[in-house]
Amino acid sequence: MAKTIEITELALRDAHQSLLATRMALEDMLPACEDIDQAGYWSVECWGGATFDACIRFLNEDPWERLRTFRRLLPNSRLQMLLRGQNLLGYRHYEDSVVDRFVDKAAENGMDVFRVFDALNDLRNIRHSVQAVRRNGKHAQGTICYTVSPLHTVQGFVDMARGLVDMGCDSLCIKDMAALLKPQPAYDIVKGIKEACGEAVRVHVHTHATTGVTLVSLMKAIEAGADCVDTAISSLSLGPGHNPTESLVEMLEGTDFATRVDKARLHRIKDHFDAVRPRYREFMSNITGVDTDIFDSQIPGGMISNMESQLKQQKAAHRLKEVLAEVPNVRRDAGYPPLVTPSSQIVGTQAVFNVMMGRYKAMSGEFADLMLGYYGSTSGERDPEVMALATRQSGKAPITERPADLLEPEWQTLRDTAVALPGCDGSDEDVLTYAMFPQVGAKFFETRAAGPRNLGHAPDAADAGQPAVPPVERRKGPVRSEVVYEVKLNGRSHRVSVAPAD
Amino acid sequence: MAKTIEITELALRDAHQSLLATRMALEDMLPACEDIDQAGYWSVECWGGATFDACIRFLNEDPWERLRTFRRLLPNSRLQMLLRGQNLLGYRHYEDSVVDRFVDKAAENGMDVFRVFDALNDLRNIRHSVQAVRRNGKHAQGTICYTVSPLHTVQGFVDMARGLVDMGCDSLCIKDMAALLKPQPAYDIVKGIKEACGEAVRVHVHTHATTGVTLVSLMKAIEAGADCVDTAISSLSLGPGHNPTESLVEMLEGTDFATRVDKARLHRIKDHFDAVRPRYREFMSNITGVDTDIFDSQIPGGMISNMESQLKQQKAAHRLKEVLAEVPNVRRDAGYPPLVTPSSQIVGTQAVFNVMMGRYKAMSGEFADLMLGYYGSTSGERDPEVMALATRQSGKAPITERPADLLEPEWQTLRDTAVALPGCDGSDEDVLTYAMFPQVGAKFFETRAAGPRNLGHAPDAADAGQPAVPPVERRKGPVRSEVVYEVKLNGRSHRVSVAPAD
Repeated sequence: MAKTIEITELALRDAHQSLLATRMALEDMLPACEDIDQAGYWSVECWGGATFDACIRFLNEDPWERLRTFRRLLPNSRLQMLLRGQNLLGYRHYEDSVVDRFVDKAAENGMDVFRVFDALNDLRNIRHSVQAVRRNGKHAQGTICYTVSPLHTVQGFVDMARGLVDMGCDSLCIKDMAALLKPQPAYDIVKGIKEACGEAVRVHVHTHATTGVTLVSLMKAIEAGADCVDTAISSLSLGPGHNPTESLVEMLEGTDFATRVDKARLHRIKDHFDAVRPRYREFMSNITGVDTDIFDSQIPGGMISNMESQLKQQKAAHRLKEVLAEVPNVRRDAGYPPLVTPSSQIVGTQAVFNVMMGRYKAMSGEFADLMLGYYGSTSGERDPEVMALATRQSGKAPITERPADLLEPEWQTLRDTAVALPGCDGSDEDVLTYAMFPQVGAKFFETRAAGPRNLGHAPDAADAGQPAVPPVERRKGPVRSEVVYEVKLNGRSHRVSVAPAD
Repeated sequence: MAKTIEITELALRDAHQSLLATRMALEDMLPACEDIDQAGYWSVECWGGATFDACIRFLNEDPWERLRTFRRLLPNSRLQMLLRGQNLLGYRHYEDSVVDRFVDKAAENGMDVFRVFDALNDLRNIRHSVQAVRRNGKHAQGTICYTVSPLHTVQGFVDMARGLVDMGCDSLCIKDMAALLKPQPAYDIVKGIKEACGEAVRVHVHTHATTGVTLVSLMKAIEAGADCVDTAISSLSLGPGHNPTESLVEMLEGTDFATRVDKARLHRIKDHFDAVRPRYREFMSNITGVDTDIFDSQIPGGMISNMESQLKQQKAAHRLKEVLAEVPNVRRDAGYPPLVTPSSQIVGTQAVFNVMMGRYKAMSGEFADLMLGYYGSTSGERDPEVMALATRQSGKAPITERPADLLEPEWQTLRDTAVALPGCDGSDEDVLTYAMFPQVGAKFFETRAAGPRNLGHAPDAADAGQPAVPPVERRKGPVRSEVVYEVKLNGRSHRVSVAPAD
């Protein structure tokens, strides 16, 4: 008997986050829900990550309502979310009572599996979320951010896995957000975890497809004992996204492993998103195909474009090469954090500062916080001289305690502020929305009544590969610009400009 | 010590054949040649397949001159070509003296490695080419076309491999032109060949990327003992093309295998073709991402689009489903040929005929030839009733001998006809060009003096992804259909239909 390999389908969250800038409207996902619910996935990732932010910032959509809709339309599925530990879905550390409320409300609204990670792999930033998930009787998945550095070893990841199991996690996830996980380390880490923690400990593997090697890594992870892998339906896969679900299924044929998904359902899910994807063409990642540069540079693609635009603003685009060479130095000085939101932005910006103004002559507040322990502890020693500079420039002392331990209870203050906002409905969910994104949340409360905004639109003829009527002239301008046509009407020729009415 | 895994780089032949309809002009390849020559590849595939045809049909380029140019610019490399056995680079069987001349001239002009295959895997169609290659002291690579059918087994492929070794081939190639080769069969076949033929027999593996699983198949083939794999530089990879060279290199890190390529050279080769590829946008395959449907349908993507266009011409596009269901029947009746040029076209066309006119009421001449053995022998028994019909409709008797044995010596006739053509320079190379493509070759001789035509052009603004105004409604119809817009003219709203004037 082949061992069953389970699948987490990413289409409803990380796939469109990675490929379509998280812009997919709920209504474009709904028609696929019945097939997704019946396809035989272990879980359906559908919430968390950047989706909460994108819902209120771009789509005028209530993320809690999105969650309740998924719960209703996916009655047979485990719903799964990505949670940034003590940062929840925001960009700062929250005090424990806020973490408790958030997890309670997510569970109450239908979430089953909480994949909890910390950008620095600091277990202390993960623990409270995991306890809250377990208190709610839900599935807590402890997550290891995979990265490569002189300090990161198979044994180090295995030790972290043991820490997560000891913490009470129901399963483990190896999260390879930058597509850096090669086949051999994938094998070694999964094997090491199974040996150290026991065969019964479920290991899930999350990889991106960017570098082109990670489907092989999933194969080796499976051979080493991985129980579940993350994939995305083929029409929302590859590039900076993930490996295609259908390819994973076919890959295992004839081996000692098999999936249990319904291929006819997969086909319908694929067709649905094949039709939806072109509606979001303007948000599509420029990256197609593969990019293996990151293996040498250690710098994720998104981070490079960030640094490029910072340099351009300072009319110093020509200094990118120096900045790229500086990144590894800054990362070393900071104790080799994984480069993932927010550490990638913090390290990248500091590298720009160092090149433009001299090494550590100026320091961003965030980089000073990182150096002084306010994001948590890093795998490596932080450079004492740079720490001293950080203290001098920020006026803050270094800390060694868990960052959230320094925070005063804040739930009541958040509640009092939120309920006073126009449009706030007074629910804990609204308070949490405000807590995650104070400004954007407040704005959202005001516009919520207008209902969700679908940013997708039918691709025009040129996009679909059908040559459209060639416009006589295209006026330069923003997206959805005016177009001028030569039009015949009642036998007479007119020069007509056409623009969308909205 | 890690075992060295060698690489055949496909950028100069199969990569642009698969991705850019074989349209890349020689001048767009030249700047990359020095890096390709120094990168450390085992061989550089750069000639044969459809390139000969495309050179004279579309590019007004002398394919022999292309070969000599590669020889000059790649002095340290093994040049490799794909040869269709007794069909050479044309679409019929040639008499042995033509095969001899062709191989002599290819060797004389610089070819080192001849990958020889037959669409039906009939060894008799491969043998004479292999002997000619060996007589020239060059490398003869015997090729197994991989396919899936109830009759094709690992043992069958291993037996064929043994036949190729006995024939005197210097190495073997498993050619997976449809991306059907899954990891487990890849492992089993390579392992089987090594066990049956000896570890010393070199095994090369050629896969396409279409289904998304074949980089994993290369990994398993390598684990089973494969010596060399085919890849394409990442900027000319994926989709209906091949796995990216850089991903293959990275994939092996930390394993018992390693490549010996120069990553800095790969980077420059990648950058070069990254810049060139958009120039051929209009020839690009529509297929991006992966397509796993072929695993179930057994019908290659290119074959489906052929059948679709045949049905459209007969205003029967709605019967595609019936035709797709008929293909496996026709293939079974024909003894399960691999579906590859030309068998895929022959089987596909007959399936269309069967659906439109009733089963075998009408038969193409090519299908009758296939049924009667004029292409060679197939793995399975051919259906006796259909063979009888083929005889009745074509007036030909079935044969069991090697098809080329029925041909009269033809070199002198071909030479006499060719040298009389305007523009023919009287060389054996020109005679061979004419022999492969009589009409197209004759036309080429007339226009050759005008020099090569580069069909690439700088991408225009519309290609660069500016969405146009969304049409109100799109009338169904063929490409370049009428589009209906809501147009405001002098303050009044009109419904206006717009169509191209040409």
